[in-house]
Amino acid sequence: MQKLFEKLDGIYEEIVSIRRYLHEYPELSFEEVKTAEYIANVHRELGHEVRTGVGGNGVVAYLKGDRPGPTVALRADFDALPILEQTDLPFKSRNDGVMHACGHDGHTATLLGLAKVLNGMKSELDGTVVFIHQHAEELPPGGAISMIEDGCLDGVDVIFGTHLQAQLPLGEIGYRVGAIQAAPDRFDIKIQGRGGHGAYPHQTVDSIVVGGQLINNLQQIVSRKVDPLDSAVVSVTSFVAKNPYNVIADTAEMIGTVRTFKEETRTFIEKEMERVVRGTCEVNGADFEFTYSRGYPTLINHKEETEFVARLAENVPGVEKVAETEPVMGGEDYAYYLQHVKGTFFFTGAENPEWKDSYPHHHPKFDIDERALLIAAKVLGKATLKYMRVHAKEAVG
Amino acid sequence: MQKLFEKLDGIYEEIVSIRRYLHEYPELSFEEVKTAEYIANVHRELGHEVRTGVGGNGVVAYLKGDRPGPTVALRADFDALPILEQTDLPFKSRNDGVMHACGHDGHTATLLGLAKVLNGMKSELDGTVVFIHQHAEELPPGGAISMIEDGCLDGVDVIFGTHLQAQLPLGEIGYRVGAIQAAPDRFDIKIQGRGGHGAYPHQTVDSIVVGGQLINNLQQIVSRKVDPLDSAVVSVTSFVAKNPYNVIADTAEMIGTVRTFKEETRTFIEKEMERVVRGTCEVNGADFEFTYSRGYPTLINHKEETEFVARLAENVPGVEKVAETEPVMGGEDYAYYLQHVKGTFFFTGAENPEWKDSYPHHHPKFDIDERALLIAAKVLGKATLKYMRVHAKEAVG
Amino acid sequence: MQKLFEKLDGIYEEIVSIRRYLHEYPELSFEEVKTAEYIANVHRELGHEVRTGVGGNGVVAYLKGDRPGPTVALRADFDALPILEQTDLPFKSRNDGVMHACGHDGHTATLLGLAKVLNGMKSELDGTVVFIHQHAEELPPGGAISMIEDGCLDGVDVIFGTHLQAQLPLGEIGYRVGAIQAAPDRFDIKIQGRGGHGAYPHQTVDSIVVGGQLINNLQQIVSRKVDPLDSAVVSVTSFVAKNPYNVIADTAEMIGTVRTFKEETRTFIEKEMERVVRGTCEVNGADFEFTYSRGYPTLINHKEETEFVARLAENVPGVEKVAETEPVMGGEDYAYYLQHVKGTFFFTGAENPEWKDSYPHHHPKFDIDERALLIAAKVLGKATLKYMRVHAKEAVG
Amino acid sequence: MQKLFEKLDGIYEEIVSIRRYLHEYPELSFEEVKTAEYIANVHRELGHEVRTGVGGNGVVAYLKGDRPGPTVALRADFDALPILEQTDLPFKSRNDGVMHACGHDGHTATLLGLAKVLNGMKSELDGTVVFIHQHAEELPPGGAISMIEDGCLDGVDVIFGTHLQAQLPLGEIGYRVGAIQAAPDRFDIKIQGRGGHGAYPHQTVDSIVVGGQLINNLQQIVSRKVDPLDSAVVSVTSFVAKNPYNVIADTAEMIGTVRTFKEETRTFIEKEMERVVRGTCEVNGADFEFTYSRGYPTLINHKEETEFVARLAENVPGVEKVAETEPVMGGEDYAYYLQHVKGTFFFTGAENPEWKDSYPHHHPKFDIDERALLIAAKVLGKATLKYMRVHAKEAVG
Repeated sequence: MQKLFEKLDGIYEEIVSIRRYLHEYPELSFEEVKTAEYIANVHRELGHEVRTGVGGNGVVAYLKGDRPGPTVALRADFDALPILEQTDLPFKSRNDGVMHACGHDGHTATLLGLAKVLNGMKSELDGTVVFIHQHAEELPPGGAISMIEDGCLDGVDVIFGTHLQAQLPLGEIGYRVGAIQAAPDRFDIKIQGRGGHGAYPHQTVDSIVVGGQLINNLQQIVSRKVDPLDSAVVSVTSFVAKNPYNVIADTAEMIGTVRTFKEETRTFIEKEMERVVRGTCEVNGADFEFTYSRGYPTLINHKEETEFVARLAENVPGVEKVAETEPVMGGEDYAYYLQHVKGTFFFTGAENPEWKDSYPHHHPKFDIDERALLIAAKVLGKATLKYMRVHAKEAVG
Repeated sequence: MQKLFEKLDGIYEEIVSIRRYLHEYPELSFEEVKTAEYIANVHRELGHEVRTGVGGNGVVAYLKGDRPGPTVALRADFDALPILEQTDLPFKSRNDGVMHACGHDGHTATLLGLAKVLNGMKSELDGTVVFIHQHAEELPPGGAISMIEDGCLDGVDVIFGTHLQAQLPLGEIGYRVGAIQAAPDRFDIKIQGRGGHGAYPHQTVDSIVVGGQLINNLQQIVSRKVDPLDSAVVSVTSFVAKNPYNVIADTAEMIGTVRTFKEETRTFIEKEMERVVRGTCEVNGADFEFTYSRGYPTLINHKEETEFVARLAENVPGVEKVAETEPVMGGEDYAYYLQHVKGTFFFTGAENPEWKDSYPHHHPKFDIDERALLIAAKVLGKATLKYMRVHAKEAVG
Repeated sequence: MQKLFEKLDGIYEEIVSIRRYLHEYPELSFEEVKTAEYIANVHRELGHEVRTGVGGNGVVAYLKGDRPGPTVALRADFDALPILEQTDLPFKSRNDGVMHACGHDGHTATLLGLAKVLNGMKSELDGTVVFIHQHAEELPPGGAISMIEDGCLDGVDVIFGTHLQAQLPLGEIGYRVGAIQAAPDRFDIKIQGRGGHGAYPHQTVDSIVVGGQLINNLQQIVSRKVDPLDSAVVSVTSFVAKNPYNVIADTAEMIGTVRTFKEETRTFIEKEMERVVRGTCEVNGADFEFTYSRGYPTLINHKEETEFVARLAENVPGVEKVAETEPVMGGEDYAYYLQHVKGTFFFTGAENPEWKDSYPHHHPKFDIDERALLIAAKVLGKATLKYMRVHAKEAVG
Repeated sequence: MQKLFEKLDGIYEEIVSIRRYLHEYPELSFEEVKTAEYIANVHRELGHEVRTGVGGNGVVAYLKGDRPGPTVALRADFDALPILEQTDLPFKSRNDGVMHACGHDGHTATLLGLAKVLNGMKSELDGTVVFIHQHAEELPPGGAISMIEDGCLDGVDVIFGTHLQAQLPLGEIGYRVGAIQAAPDRFDIKIQGRGGHGAYPHQTVDSIVVGGQLINNLQQIVSRKVDPLDSAVVSVTSFVAKNPYNVIADTAEMIGTVRTFKEETRTFIEKEMERVVRGTCEVNGADFEFTYSRGYPTLINHKEETEFVARLAENVPGVEKVAETEPVMGGEDYAYYLQHVKGTFFFTGAENPEWKDSYPHHHPKFDIDERALLIAAKVLGKATLKYMRVHAKEAVG
């Protein structure tokens, strides 16, 4: 592995400059045309077989080693967010209102750097590396599902991926067997009351009062109906019933999110919400529309592959701590890959130890410590090489 | 009175055509420039002394009788509403999005017709008639208050006014001693929580949840804190906290109205609301802004003048029923006049007995039975002549 | 009338001593055996025809005048309350835990005194007086309904009655045409959830949480569903779900009262409550029992008889003010009499002007100014004589 | 170990008969006088040094091995519950209303049987066994804390204990490093409003309405304020405001429980509840009393000792599965021992695989599969011997 690490150290500056370039030219989910072109070109220059337009703007590149062995996929996402950047970075976004505020620029730079290095080690590769550059992770239905349908996992034996974490200290790797990211669902509720003059409530069905009851009643699903040892969130995030001061609300529209880890809890909450919405509206003589839209599934890491990465990460240069992480309530469409092939998804600490505040993901001042890219590349690279070695032997043996 | 009634009958067609003309060219509150000009011209042609621009767009005209006596004011309002008319009337509004949906066109036509007739009876008039054509009744602070400040009540002994009522049968006159229309106040509440990711409610102060509690708690002012024998309304009519499905609300903005008849209840509710808003926000660790804006005062009819009109209306041609009316929760800035001079405000039935549905005031299909204009003119005219006769004698006696 | 007034003045001390005797020996509703016996004896000594055990413990006595004329009923109630008296009166209750805390002792003393005086004026009486001494006014279903069924109103043309009011100044008579006392209904709600361990709410249906929602939702009937110009009260007065600290409530029991003046509002609230209870329980998966028990009807005074008493009360000695009263939300089974015969029920002020605090009815320190008994007797006596005179003449004429 | 297991097999019938005897004569927490005497006698007959009255009714017995080594404590609790047994067992409780409905009879029989066997293996014991027979586990403050103060842990190096679990299949051992049982706290809230007549809510502060708001608001601590990845319960289990149907509640009394695993969450919820109670009462103008009583701490197993037991349990006869268990929200005062010495607490499956329903702990039909006693004794016995062997060697080495 020493060679891998040294070669990665040698192109660290290049990795950083790729990340900064991508940061300057972010593109929104499902609109990442130029970014895809940029990625494809890097791989083309390396002589990799490249497929573009995979399931949308996705790019898949193939590096075939000189020796036989398994096929290892590595995934990086490359879309950005509709956020107006508020940092003072010299490579600040040049697309006003669009920002790489979640680290996907770093994921992509890491993977391109690793591609370059592995390309130079072709003779030692026992198998094939598939570089999955995924578009549209931020916006359901996401890019993963269509890229899978378009064959990006064909022939793949295992997949590895990571997320740079601005709240995890640089040098730390977080892993978790089983559920590591929640299923992020969305609901839409429309309360249809009967509007009227603000002075004559008895002639109306006041949609705001119905909504007030509903907000309260929905709280009680998590506090009373879900096992306290399980984790779930029901948040009403939007409530709109806009009227003049003397007109009682005809309708009220609510939007929100549900987060769960277990499929049975997810299904239970969907049904329970429907019941609470129906009942609360009926109590008040209001009609309603209720839509529950499932987002990504829970991201469930495979046990063997997760422990494999956790162990090998221990003595990767730059890694100071490998620890089991708590799961996070946010979603990730990497979950779909793990429904098809074995693999794992881990967190790479990217918090500069000297920063007083590290801004959370999706914040206009979000930033990462770029040294994390090197660490991520080393862990992913080592996982690739080691996995190939082990399984190539098995095949031979 | 026979002469008055006959003369009014004689110009009924003209009254109707004035009303229809005004209906075609409605103007919004505080923007009634052309309507004011139209009114002023009618009075000028009659040779009345005319003041324009009174307290804004108000018009005041003076008809001096040949005999000495008291000064009687008659008031009609002339502004329209921001409503897109949906009737099929041949004289439908030509100003899209502006509509005489409250009958002010009828009030004005009534008063102009009556002015014409009284002008022709100058020799029999014991005193002076002041025609108060008021702008901006629909929009607080209203036109009345500034017209009074600008002298429209100077020298006035008594004031009479009426409102055409689309829900009261044609032929009916409704009167009430004391409070007949409520004080319509407005409140604005801003809840300032702390937004955040929909999956991490514990890192936020959820403004929608605070708002849900507040809606509930505000309901309890009327149900628990106000004397059940008193009448009051507290309605939250607008609630806006617009966010993506995965972002917990940073702020929520509420608007609403309070309706009361008694000053002490009004003051109590204002204070109680402030306490409920403050306490509910404190419970949740949210900040708030609370503004309570007083609208028009309660319209309180004077006893003697009200009973005077109720009695004389009994045998006015076209009047079939004179009855005490329930007060209404809506407001009227006529209230200000009665804080300065004696007088009364009564309701004139304008519901066509053959209509299946009569649309409520402020409805896009609102309409009135135009025969009500004649009845209103006769009651107002009789009140004027009779009041002059009685009080002129007194003065002489 | 002078003679009536003088005779009443002459036995004032006796009236007071009757009241004090009754005050010392109060008896609970439906248990007023000795009080009934006492009353019957007074009438027997006067030679009146007496019926006892009328519809329970009721007593009816008949005084036939020497001249023909109408039959006038006068009603006084005589039951006491389950309250431990806390006054320092020398004639304080000797039945611990039972107290005349509503003035029924005064009503009865007034009527017995008046009986004595009218008995002495037999030769001047144009008709018959029926003294209705009613038991059990305080406890539904009350005594009135069974006394009526048992014939106490047979042959009666008109009925008069009064209530001594500890919050109305001595010397004041309060009257009101139409509804003067509300219909006091009762409801009982049992929420049947599913109990369990306090640490495992998700295995339960938490009856207390359902009850909390229900308390809130019931508030909104008055604040949102009843016309603000109408008067209504919905109060949950009892909520019992008693459990150890670690056992989630299996059931919760609620009791409360509804007060209304209009039959349609009463019916509406009963239906609406049923809907709110059903819906709120269904939302939570709880069962329920809901019972709505109608109490006395609204007490509705007849117009002619009410105005008759209001006018004649004006120059009764001791009466300083006769005024229209606001209706009260409390109930009175006198209401039943007025469903069968014409009549009225008025309030007689009994607040001593020198008392700093006058305790409300049903308070352990409740007391009345005994001079009110004399005033009440004079008004009732004058009403009786005058009504007879007028209607006897009519009959003759 | 073979010898240990065989000796235990040999006295299985005796263990069962001890358990059944104890089951027939249950005693309530802090009243376990006869049970303590029974236990002490068993140890006295074995020649063990016995301390009685330890921190109350606690009994501690000492078995000194022939060889030097560490001091190992084993704990069993022996109090019963105030429950009326509803089983048909031949050894059903003879103390009506008191029942061993949590398996403490089994714990004690297990420990007494093990004591007998270990006593017979004295020559092979490398150290001392301390048998801690604890009273009053079911009722805070519990017996553990006072027994510790009274020296029951003096000289102890490690402690082992188990709980028979009626919902865990026979043959299964559940272990968990870290928090395995929650901290069970209690709260008491008194709302002091201002009572009054049910028809006049505006003259009162309605304690039931305040309570209804409070029930709702307290729900939102868990749903909004606690990290969804953490576990917590806030249950209002008792709500009492008992009144006649026409009297608005002067006071309302609430009781409930809070369950947490983390000290910081516990402290947060205590503070947050105080804030919510204060704020909700202030909003309504009510006073309050709020008491938060901490129960047992979270039971936190030590890592090394827990993994030690988990490993050695694997090949104990009768054990079919050793698995990490979810923590439980119920409390256990064994927690106190682990604040002073190293050790672990594990669950022993006691559900008969042929039972259709196994009743939960604290249920009147609760029962266990007695074969679990033998398994528990073997695991505890093996842990004792093995721990001694390992640590005696260390000491020597």
